[in-house]
Amino acid sequence: MTVDCQELRFRTHREGEILDITDQIQRIVTSSKVKDGVATLFVPGSTGALTTIEFEPGLLTDFPLALERLAPKRGSYEHENRWHDGNGHSHIRASIIGPDLSVPFLDKKLLLGTWQQIVFVELDVRPRDRTVIVQLVGE
Amino acid sequence: MTVDCQELRFRTHREGEILDITDQIQRIVTSSKVKDGVATLFVPGSTGALTTIEFEPGLLTDFPLALERLAPKRGSYEHENRWHDGNGHSHIRASIIGPDLSVPFLDKKLLLGTWQQIVFVELDVRPRDRTVIVQLVGE
Amino acid sequence: MTVDCQELRFRTHREGEILDITDQIQRIVTSSKVKDGVATLFVPGSTGALTTIEFEPGLLTDFPLALERLAPKRGSYEHENRWHDGNGHSHIRASIIGPDLSVPFLDKKLLLGTWQQIVFVELDVRPRDRTVIVQLVGE
Repeated sequence: MTVDCQELRFRTHREGEILDITDQIQRIVTSSKVKDGVATLFVPGSTGALTTIEFEPGLLTDFPLALERLAPKRGSYEHENRWHDGNGHSHIRASIIGPDLSVPFLDKKLLLGTWQQIVFVELDVRPRDRTVIVQLVGE
Repeated sequence: MTVDCQELRFRTHREGEILDITDQIQRIVTSSKVKDGVATLFVPGSTGALTTIEFEPGLLTDFPLALERLAPKRGSYEHENRWHDGNGHSHIRASIIGPDLSVPFLDKKLLLGTWQQIVFVELDVRPRDRTVIVQLVGE
Repeated sequence: MTVDCQELRFRTHREGEILDITDQIQRIVTSSKVKDGVATLFVPGSTGALTTIEFEPGLLTDFPLALERLAPKRGSYEHENRWHDGNGHSHIRASIIGPDLSVPFLDKKLLLGTWQQIVFVELDVRPRDRTVIVQLVGE
């Protein structure tokens, strides 16, 4: 058995940005010594999230709008009353979508659907330097 | 250490259908050579999702209604304006619930609660042939 | 490769309680023989959930309020009509947040962000004795 821990680093540009990180994750899997297993992706932070989506321009608009219904930016937040960083809604959205994503791979290929991409969702209100941990466990 | 990759295949019948796949996943675990570890379940597709629920008729009605609040079917979606397949809301719901589920097992038994079942949720607007990847990693 | 299955047990006090279980999970990782790998956490039950959040008093108020928008306590639920246990909304919230969380660790240290804690969310309407499965897989 082998564990291979890698990191993906990138800069985001704005709140609601959805970044397709599929190719970078696939490249990490391709270059690893682990052939079959699970890639556990994790955001070390509480205002970003990971999920999968069909990465096309329509949904890049629709998904942030749905998150606005879930936790409105202009809502009232106790987090805001204490910290004044304007991102109470960001934290709520991140906790609901979740910081982790586990994707199986076989023969060094992520087992994704054809129109399914792995995305990082920037939920904070300003550009951020982001890291995604990629922990490969398998053989 | 051992990795054992299996697939579950089935046909869904309608939008909002919630399928209890616990017995099939348990059967895969039972027949595997992996005794202790984690079953990582994954939907290769962007309009289906995996979670757990108490599988009883009331919640099978309630859960789709809650998803309707999260992303209304009759809402306005850019995805719809571009692709005209009537499933913008399906994508949003799937990305929020998520395509993956990791369930630990010990001595070939999934460590679920008594009234907790593993379910596939069909979020697309039409019947679909579905696959769930079952990646067992352990020893 | 090694699999190490541990359990965390605790009692919750009220609906909407958010418990920071980071230190307990880190302690389990520290005392395990597995050095690098993934901690798969799982709630065996259908009215509790796991996620990460910045554990500060503001968000402990804000997060339950957001869940109230997602599935209102005073809403109408078929689950309630059948079982009369007053927790239809609890089940819905739990299925959306999810029962599992996968956190990578390296050199026996969970790879969390500085202001990111692992939390158990009590969604049921009464105090409960809770168990969280902690399955460590790695080497």
